[in-house]
Amino acid sequence: MLDPVRWSAPDGSVHSSWAPGVKLVPGKLRLLDQTKLPNSVEYLETDDLEAVFTAIRRLVVRGAPAIGCAAALGLAAAAGRFGVKGGPGFMELLDSAAQRLSESRPTAVNLFWALNRCVAKVRAAASQGVKDLEEALLKEALAILEEDISMCKSIGVHGSSLLQDGMGVLTHCNAGALATGDYGTALSPVYVAHEKGLKIKVFSDETRPLLQGSRLTAWELHRAGVDVTTICDNMAAQVMREGRVQIVIVGADRVAANGDAANKIGTYGVAILAKYHKIPFYVAIPYSTIDPSLPDGSLIPIEQRGAEEVSCGFGRRTAPEGVSVYNPAFDVTPHELVTGFITERGVLSPPFSGKMLHASSAPKGS
Amino acid sequence: MLDPVRWSAPDGSVHSSWAPGVKLVPGKLRLLDQTKLPNSVEYLETDDLEAVFTAIRRLVVRGAPAIGCAAALGLAAAAGRFGVKGGPGFMELLDSAAQRLSESRPTAVNLFWALNRCVAKVRAAASQGVKDLEEALLKEALAILEEDISMCKSIGVHGSSLLQDGMGVLTHCNAGALATGDYGTALSPVYVAHEKGLKIKVFSDETRPLLQGSRLTAWELHRAGVDVTTICDNMAAQVMREGRVQIVIVGADRVAANGDAANKIGTYGVAILAKYHKIPFYVAIPYSTIDPSLPDGSLIPIEQRGAEEVSCGFGRRTAPEGVSVYNPAFDVTPHELVTGFITERGVLSPPFSGKMLHASSAPKGS
Repeated sequence: MLDPVRWSAPDGSVHSSWAPGVKLVPGKLRLLDQTKLPNSVEYLETDDLEAVFTAIRRLVVRGAPAIGCAAALGLAAAAGRFGVKGGPGFMELLDSAAQRLSESRPTAVNLFWALNRCVAKVRAAASQGVKDLEEALLKEALAILEEDISMCKSIGVHGSSLLQDGMGVLTHCNAGALATGDYGTALSPVYVAHEKGLKIKVFSDETRPLLQGSRLTAWELHRAGVDVTTICDNMAAQVMREGRVQIVIVGADRVAANGDAANKIGTYGVAILAKYHKIPFYVAIPYSTIDPSLPDGSLIPIEQRGAEEVSCGFGRRTAPEGVSVYNPAFDVTPHELVTGFITERGVLSPPFSGKMLHASSAPKGS
Repeated sequence: MLDPVRWSAPDGSVHSSWAPGVKLVPGKLRLLDQTKLPNSVEYLETDDLEAVFTAIRRLVVRGAPAIGCAAALGLAAAAGRFGVKGGPGFMELLDSAAQRLSESRPTAVNLFWALNRCVAKVRAAASQGVKDLEEALLKEALAILEEDISMCKSIGVHGSSLLQDGMGVLTHCNAGALATGDYGTALSPVYVAHEKGLKIKVFSDETRPLLQGSRLTAWELHRAGVDVTTICDNMAAQVMREGRVQIVIVGADRVAANGDAANKIGTYGVAILAKYHKIPFYVAIPYSTIDPSLPDGSLIPIEQRGAEEVSCGFGRRTAPEGVSVYNPAFDVTPHELVTGFITERGVLSPPFSGKMLHASSAPKGS
């Protein structure tokens, strides 16, 4: 077992960083290159705006919260090289840099949100001193990272109340430390339980076609010393039947007001298998994932992706030339299959509707 | 759409050969090299005993019925090169050749059965003339192939009564023409319906870790002009939810007396998903697959295979070094999830117990 990397936040608190995908090292953004996992652990350190742009675009960092953190810290690092003397010149370059980064992943809501928040904070700093503006920017970027870690950790604290020593947890895709500032959403309860000394056994669906479950989830859990076993997606039912799984925890990309949850393709199938085996099925999310404007999941669009991901996924053709491929990237798990939502404010039990619609006034704990 | 390859059997009947994996060309065994699919279509033609042995061992041909046919035809082809003049010398070489081939795949029941049947037939020929013995051997080997094709076609005829024009069929792994003499078991109803001119749309689970569904099933159906779409295993639930699947048909390796069915890993999960979506789930098998000595599926041993199939299945490492992998090759679908068995004598509906135990006197039709 490797020791977790411990690091100090600006407020002096110490975090167990299970998989430090996004960090600020003096003056530079440091990203763990997720495209190289699990074969090699390589870091990209840069204060160059175009390098940050390219890194986000080519998925060196992925997962909406992690992208937001990387964009904010990347903007702060790049601003250190603006080399202008006056506040107005600084603001002009900052606006243009934020604009540039916002184009790296066109559909990433967290990306726009984090960049806008940084720019607004600097604009409101009411100072003409470039040093002051740089400092305000850096502080805001670190606050975004800190808040994300703290929110994820809260999800973990609430979720860990569902875990007991020796439990088997099945998860799908990667909603882990690598996808967030740290801790993750679905994996945060596991990390918090692990910090408490509980022995948790995780089964990680490999998650075809892009294998985030074996490439990323198994990597970060293994690195953190958590007992993790990778299985092919089609083995989940057998593993459940053998009594090896006591709880399923997954993340979600978007949750409708009634609790229908969109997540990586395959999640819906896992939810059905869990119901059949009477295993509780939890979705771990920050409240920001809930979209109260969507009454139900039928309104969530399902992205269709290219055939090559399925037919020649890993540098080798595995389906005949010319054969049709269907490759939906997400599915929607209907709320009736969800045992509960693990959020930063507590665990929500059904019925979800009211709790989802009044997200901002939701009670702590279930 | 490619025309099916038509060929004449010794009795003069003409078969539509959808995927001629195992054939006898004058004096030689011809095998379609399944290890090269779907990237290239290569045939091995040989009358060399060691070449037949190696081909079976390295999975140039796979699927229990296809292996039996290949061993019988391979034995007949190799016997043409024995070069002995007397009957006793021929029998001695035949025994030793059959013994050698029986060691190519130690657990393949059809292999032993086909070889024993050929040797017994030659022994009973009551002739000392080598030409007579060679002829008896060839006739028996061709009979084994013919009977397998005919049995598979019967499964298809009975199963096709469940299919209607425009239906979506989901299948898992490869229980197709490539795994048998021709037609297959699970795919035979599709081929027979296709011959009748029905438009059937097949969804082929890719079937991790070895991808038989995308490499073999999609290949043979596509080649035969059947509309086939490959999906990742974890997409089956979504495809069902979208109303694209009206029936599931899979094969089985072994069926217990109560109808519990062992098949490629992932079949059990598909059965649960079918039940949830109220889609009928059929298992297509010859009666010989039923093992009346097994009261239920809990007694069927589940083979565990090596980690590398999962962790570096695509010629590239996709799970971290040192991470645990669980890789059961089969699962058992409990009989209560099976809508019916499609056999060469008809479709069996529940309750299965009596029908399975009295396999030899089972009625035709359900």
